[in-house]
Amino acid sequence: MADLDPLIARLREFVAERDWQQFHDPKNLAMLVASEAGELLAEYRWVANSAADAHSAEAEARARIAAEIGDVGIGLLLLCDRIGVDLGTAISDKLATNRLRYPAEKTRGKAHRPEG
Amino acid sequence: MADLDPLIARLREFVAERDWQQFHDPKNLAMLVASEAGELLAEYRWVANSAADAHSAEAEARARIAAEIGDVGIGLLLLCDRIGVDLGTAISDKLATNRLRYPAEKTRGKAHRPEG
Amino acid sequence: MADLDPLIARLREFVAERDWQQFHDPKNLAMLVASEAGELLAEYRWVANSAADAHSAEAEARARIAAEIGDVGIGLLLLCDRIGVDLGTAISDKLATNRLRYPAEKTRGKAHRPEG
Amino acid sequence: MADLDPLIARLREFVAERDWQQFHDPKNLAMLVASEAGELLAEYRWVANSAADAHSAEAEARARIAAEIGDVGIGLLLLCDRIGVDLGTAISDKLATNRLRYPAEKTRGKAHRPEG
Repeated sequence: MADLDPLIARLREFVAERDWQQFHDPKNLAMLVASEAGELLAEYRWVANSAADAHSAEAEARARIAAEIGDVGIGLLLLCDRIGVDLGTAISDKLATNRLRYPAEKTRGKAHRPEG
Repeated sequence: MADLDPLIARLREFVAERDWQQFHDPKNLAMLVASEAGELLAEYRWVANSAADAHSAEAEARARIAAEIGDVGIGLLLLCDRIGVDLGTAISDKLATNRLRYPAEKTRGKAHRPEG
Repeated sequence: MADLDPLIARLREFVAERDWQQFHDPKNLAMLVASEAGELLAEYRWVANSAADAHSAEAEARARIAAEIGDVGIGLLLLCDRIGVDLGTAISDKLATNRLRYPAEKTRGKAHRPEG
Repeated sequence: MADLDPLIARLREFVAERDWQQFHDPKNLAMLVASEAGELLAEYRWVANSAADAHSAEAEARARIAAEIGDVGIGLLLLCDRIGVDLGTAISDKLATNRLRYPAEKTRGKAHRPEG
């Protein structure tokens, strides 16, 4: 994967050129992440599970899906940068938590329930 | 930032140990991203814009927020890995698109409208 | 269906008793709707399309799903009440718009594309 | 509020005319609700809490917001109709649960924490 650090620098520059820092408090950025995730979701809402891989490979859909993934990623990086969280560390730490929460021998082959 | 490539390898291993690939078609993974983004959003829903930076720095809230960021990141990496999209490239490409869509001189200091 | 007007009165009372009006500006209520919709989504994320009707009928899942639907509905009614939009009218108006946007003869049997 | 029962009848007719029942299993409808909730969220993402009421009253924004509320409501009614849940009852039941979960004397003036 491309290194994300240079992307953070480019995002900061993009935001600064537009004087958008004023809108980018963590609350608004969490809304950005969620609304972009909703657009990503929309790409699959009428696609059956069994057709979702093929849909993701079709050129026009693929371009839209990659763009929505990019939007979610941008929102996530902007939020991380604003609050001083390293995305890689957050992912690594949560994966370690999930290893404890979902022991392989107890969860093998079972869809996990909502965590809530 | 921590390099994400080793994280992808660790995610694959985590999923394989639990035999969860069967649940991880792109549609379900887009749902994972969106539902985790909803949990991230919930962390800020009663926090005012003006208090959102301080909230993000408070230890207990910060730990929960980092965990939710981790969850969104995990979902995004799993989706990217499943459909063969590089997250860094997707972000970089979308940023280039946004540069064209939102010229600095026309959008400076203005919150952009919903795109849709 | 139960008439929703008495529910709005009960919601107002519930909120007033807790002095929660201060948190319920339209932005926060839109976040409430979206985060609860994320929880509703989570109920189905590991369920295949082909199993989703049966899942919705299973007692324990059904109770959780109805509770999440209730949460989304509460958020939507609180938002409508705050900004003076009648939910029934909003639905009726949007349905009329959709009739124009998706003519039956052109869209029959076709999943519609994301609108964006 | 306008009675929602006639709206359900009109939604059924709209869907039947387009032969869209095939796409409307509960999983896909939960995705519809969540993606439309994401669009509603987008209407407020760059609006400060303190400006959210005024934004909701501005004519052009108001029309878009009402349309997004209509979309979320349509998705919710379609889901309820598909799985045989009465929206009014679901809201009423969840409100009763919330009365027990958040006693007024303990929660007065306090934003409640994420539930889970």
